[in-house]
Amino acid sequence: MRESAQALQLVAFDADDTLWLTEPGYSAAQEKLQQLLEPYVELDALAQAVYETEMRNMPLYGYGAKPFILSMIETAIELSAGEISARDVRRIIDIGRDMLNAPLSLLPGARETLERLAPAHNLILITKGDIFDQEGKLARSGLAGLFRAVEIVGEKDEATYARILARHGVEPGGFLMVGNSLRSDVLPVLAIGGRAVHIPYHITWLHETVDEARLPKDGYFTLENIGQLPELLEQEFGGG
Amino acid sequence: MRESAQALQLVAFDADDTLWLTEPGYSAAQEKLQQLLEPYVELDALAQAVYETEMRNMPLYGYGAKPFILSMIETAIELSAGEISARDVRRIIDIGRDMLNAPLSLLPGARETLERLAPAHNLILITKGDIFDQEGKLARSGLAGLFRAVEIVGEKDEATYARILARHGVEPGGFLMVGNSLRSDVLPVLAIGGRAVHIPYHITWLHETVDEARLPKDGYFTLENIGQLPELLEQEFGGG
Repeated sequence: MRESAQALQLVAFDADDTLWLTEPGYSAAQEKLQQLLEPYVELDALAQAVYETEMRNMPLYGYGAKPFILSMIETAIELSAGEISARDVRRIIDIGRDMLNAPLSLLPGARETLERLAPAHNLILITKGDIFDQEGKLARSGLAGLFRAVEIVGEKDEATYARILARHGVEPGGFLMVGNSLRSDVLPVLAIGGRAVHIPYHITWLHETVDEARLPKDGYFTLENIGQLPELLEQEFGGG
Repeated sequence: MRESAQALQLVAFDADDTLWLTEPGYSAAQEKLQQLLEPYVELDALAQAVYETEMRNMPLYGYGAKPFILSMIETAIELSAGEISARDVRRIIDIGRDMLNAPLSLLPGARETLERLAPAHNLILITKGDIFDQEGKLARSGLAGLFRAVEIVGEKDEATYARILARHGVEPGGFLMVGNSLRSDVLPVLAIGGRAVHIPYHITWLHETVDEARLPKDGYFTLENIGQLPELLEQEFGGG
């Protein structure tokens, strides 16, 4: 796919599952919850039940690990019909603490790609979720110094992207967003006239999935891994 | 107290218990938790126990309602020696949901003061805590349009204030912070050379209290209520 060349003024990166791993931590937590609930209930769709609780709670709790922990507790009480013991509730809290305490794993090539792009591009980070968690992860990532700015937002929708572009004085045509979520990193950016690079991660949280039918046929790029990004920028935007 | 007059470039407001009520919601939740725990344990220092759990969890959870809910659950399990029922854990979750669902109450004079200052000053909001909660509260407050920018931060320390000033291109001497917390709104601002107005709220979260001995004797103003702010600015900085 070839875009009409316009100079890139701002290249933004998503964080979770674009620069560092997040989904594996959530999946591991669900597996531990499954084991913990085995004495109480026969389960064949725990992940779906937790997801439904999360969606019901999202207008109140928002995104991130703490909403997930609260939703795990709520789901466990519900599925066990109130039979789960306080000690096992405490174990669910500990499953959550383990998630939050887990060391941060960068995706392969993330650091090298950012280091290669930083001298020639204005790089920023745009991530949603919990500001406390995300600031902590960014600090532990060692990547903070490569970004001109960090935007931690409540929701990645068209209004949020438009506000960020206005704040940075950038036209949509000069903006490129790089991320693993079609729903959060690609669609709203295309909708306001920006460009996007989709780098799928092999696990996608159900909430971030998008109907194929809703996807525009072109207007964005897809890469297999972040290491391919410098070459794409060179090819399409003539800058390295 | 009289400051050497320097033009104000940026006037920033704290949100929780400066523009709208927050502490009463936390206090009411603790009272409900106390009632709920009565069958399990004799309590004379529940608030202190919850506070200690919150402080222990802060490096992991940060600030806001969700850390508070998780800390209430943890404290209840601990104090009841694991005897609390799952149904009562569910009730604690509901106490938390009620807090998050409670209608927002602006402090008297907050709206009028901001409306009076907005035409002549660059007003911004600086609040810490949960971005999802704070954005929701700001939207419900109806005050969002009065601020040039909104900064939701993980911690209100010197580094955070310095970063915000740099982003807005403002010298510390031209910056005034207005808030109810000596620890978060006054001390770090004075430390980087800014000015501050302290408007105490009658309940202060223990975490935000400061030893009298640590307080500078001058360099900041104290008001009884936000309605007195326009007159102070007029007097001290010669602008309305």
